[in-house]
Amino acid sequence: MPEKDISAARKASPLSREEVDAQMALIRRGIAEMVSEDELRGKIARGRPLRVKVGFDPTAPDLHLGHTVVLQKMRHFQQLGHEIIFLIGDFTGTIGDPSGRSDTRPHLTREQVLANAESYKEQVFKILDPEKTVVDFNSRWMNRMNAADVIRLASRYTVARLMGRDDFARRFQNNIPISVHEFLYPLAQGYDSVALKADVEMGGTDQTFNLLVGRHLQTQYGQEPQCVITLPLLEGLDGLKKMSKSLGNYIGIDEPPAQIFGKTMSVSDSLMWRYYELLSDRDMHEIESLRREVEHGRINPKEVKESLAFELAARYHGREAAEEARREFNSVFSRGGMPEDTPVLVCRRGEASAPVAFLSASGLAASRGEARRLVAQNALSVNEELCSDPLSPLPAGEYDIKLGKKRFLKLRVSD
Amino acid sequence: MPEKDISAARKASPLSREEVDAQMALIRRGIAEMVSEDELRGKIARGRPLRVKVGFDPTAPDLHLGHTVVLQKMRHFQQLGHEIIFLIGDFTGTIGDPSGRSDTRPHLTREQVLANAESYKEQVFKILDPEKTVVDFNSRWMNRMNAADVIRLASRYTVARLMGRDDFARRFQNNIPISVHEFLYPLAQGYDSVALKADVEMGGTDQTFNLLVGRHLQTQYGQEPQCVITLPLLEGLDGLKKMSKSLGNYIGIDEPPAQIFGKTMSVSDSLMWRYYELLSDRDMHEIESLRREVEHGRINPKEVKESLAFELAARYHGREAAEEARREFNSVFSRGGMPEDTPVLVCRRGEASAPVAFLSASGLAASRGEARRLVAQNALSVNEELCSDPLSPLPAGEYDIKLGKKRFLKLRVSD
Repeated sequence: MPEKDISAARKASPLSREEVDAQMALIRRGIAEMVSEDELRGKIARGRPLRVKVGFDPTAPDLHLGHTVVLQKMRHFQQLGHEIIFLIGDFTGTIGDPSGRSDTRPHLTREQVLANAESYKEQVFKILDPEKTVVDFNSRWMNRMNAADVIRLASRYTVARLMGRDDFARRFQNNIPISVHEFLYPLAQGYDSVALKADVEMGGTDQTFNLLVGRHLQTQYGQEPQCVITLPLLEGLDGLKKMSKSLGNYIGIDEPPAQIFGKTMSVSDSLMWRYYELLSDRDMHEIESLRREVEHGRINPKEVKESLAFELAARYHGREAAEEARREFNSVFSRGGMPEDTPVLVCRRGEASAPVAFLSASGLAASRGEARRLVAQNALSVNEELCSDPLSPLPAGEYDIKLGKKRFLKLRVSD
Repeated sequence: MPEKDISAARKASPLSREEVDAQMALIRRGIAEMVSEDELRGKIARGRPLRVKVGFDPTAPDLHLGHTVVLQKMRHFQQLGHEIIFLIGDFTGTIGDPSGRSDTRPHLTREQVLANAESYKEQVFKILDPEKTVVDFNSRWMNRMNAADVIRLASRYTVARLMGRDDFARRFQNNIPISVHEFLYPLAQGYDSVALKADVEMGGTDQTFNLLVGRHLQTQYGQEPQCVITLPLLEGLDGLKKMSKSLGNYIGIDEPPAQIFGKTMSVSDSLMWRYYELLSDRDMHEIESLRREVEHGRINPKEVKESLAFELAARYHGREAAEEARREFNSVFSRGGMPEDTPVLVCRRGEASAPVAFLSASGLAASRGEARRLVAQNALSVNEELCSDPLSPLPAGEYDIKLGKKRFLKLRVSD
């Protein structure tokens, strides 16, 4: 360890076991895995602020709640007095994918990287404290590396270890080409931890391998290895698949407050608790007691869900806009004739807003075929009017949907 | 192709089929393999001088005849008017082996590299024409490469192809670690061909894989691929194993003329023809006719061997010294009582010069055990005197050895 760190450690006052326990409780909340708990306790116990590194892609950010799981955890570390390094991996981004195989790694100019960094800040500072966040770029050290430095770096890791990464092993076995530079990217990412002397690195569970590379390389370069914390991939609105833009099951943090509110209201009760754990700022004890209240029927789950929807809308748009979103939601969905626990579906205008689509997507009909048959039998009413065309999309708006006498749906069609 | 080359090609006058045939005949002499014959014919036919690259290790050179096989082939290209690039791989040499696993890749300073280059020149210009030889260093371009350049280079080759290299495949399968930087060395060597726009690269058969990497990378960088010529690994004095310092079966080009002469005289007749093909400057037709003369008993093989020994001694020490070596050899080995075709064994003073060792090494005795028994039975005479101690080494000198009545050996013990 360099002298500077030792002296800092001397100046810091060690924490008591209870203080460490308190920090660990918040840090453990909602995480997938930690390597290792004992090491992290040791680092925390020294009492000096930890350097917590999280890497982000330099391509244009357009964050949804899935991305905010790690941001929430970064916020926890900030609340505990630690130093957060928001690291933009611009070095590889400005190279692009030299093999030209991947469209997901476009070549970015310096200007684009800086513009994207600004866009990141605008979005993430709704969660993170700007005062306690260092935004850094790995080009700062990677651009200074020459070929000999890369060879020295590469000498610190073995081919066999890299072949242990699931995707590499699978591709190698299936004769799907792996370019040699793909072996260098995890090493470059790991070297970032060396350059930053990171104490902790976090990422999604899909990043586990790369985070562990950093740990190994730090040891090779004579540093104390970073602790690795992985966070679960957030389930999308469907509660099944990972939240993603391409699957359409997401809540974007730049979406209008009414959308954030409405989409949150559309999740199942069990997913609601998951979102509470991973996204809410509320204390876990508080969340647990809410859950017990709901289980004992002393509180309506819709009310608890509204509270989460409000918190999320307020985080990204302020309390006033969130109040407005709640009022609007309730006025629309309190029209008569619909039971209290009517499910809510939010969809985009277009194919998804045609009766065959929303009836099958919501589960009111078992399939598109059944939806079509029931509409043909005049079983569908929209805002209490008969609807006999199964294929025409509904325009943007809010709708009370009834199918036969017993099946209800609140539908919001967005633009 | 860059404009410069095209214009050069335009200025050059194409060669006739016969002229190409003549060049190919000399180039093919003694080689192991060529990729590909048609491509090389095409390059030669354009009539402009080819750029022929051969890479050399930057560590202290101490060449033996095994190394001169490729030098002879470089000389052939020079005789045909082509441009020889004697490339010293100093870039990796100055890095050393960063993993610290290999003693064979010491870290060299700039000064050592330059001193070694001078030592190389002193030795190789006994074979190559200094006027037609470009000595270059790959640090010239490799030192200018940055990390991004290395990643771009690495993107041009796949892991699967590298795993096709015998030693990598074997180590991977046997769980012997391969450091990632070992994957970068063949790419760096291949990139040298790109930087030099090489038309031909040559090396030992153990270099085949690396030479083909250069071919592939040139295509990737939009160049015409180099032709690859591999040369056989020269058998040592034993006629069995590859000539090498550590096996002791070598003729060093810096050895005294008498040693070069004597060691050459000690090789078997069949190995003599191999050395003629790979090392002599004599025309192959001439060599073939000599071989026929010997086969028909019209010329004594000892005479032909002397002529080769003289050529090699003269190449490295001048004709006068070679004459002296021949005279000395003949005066020693013309002592009476030994048949004309007595085999010759050259060994170092020490263990190898003890009767059990040289009797078994020469094949006079079938084993060390038999040698020991025969000496105990007083069957051994050295310079016509009985020798009854099987284990005492003979001092440096020349000896007539008789074992029983019918087995003869001329032994030279060197210091």
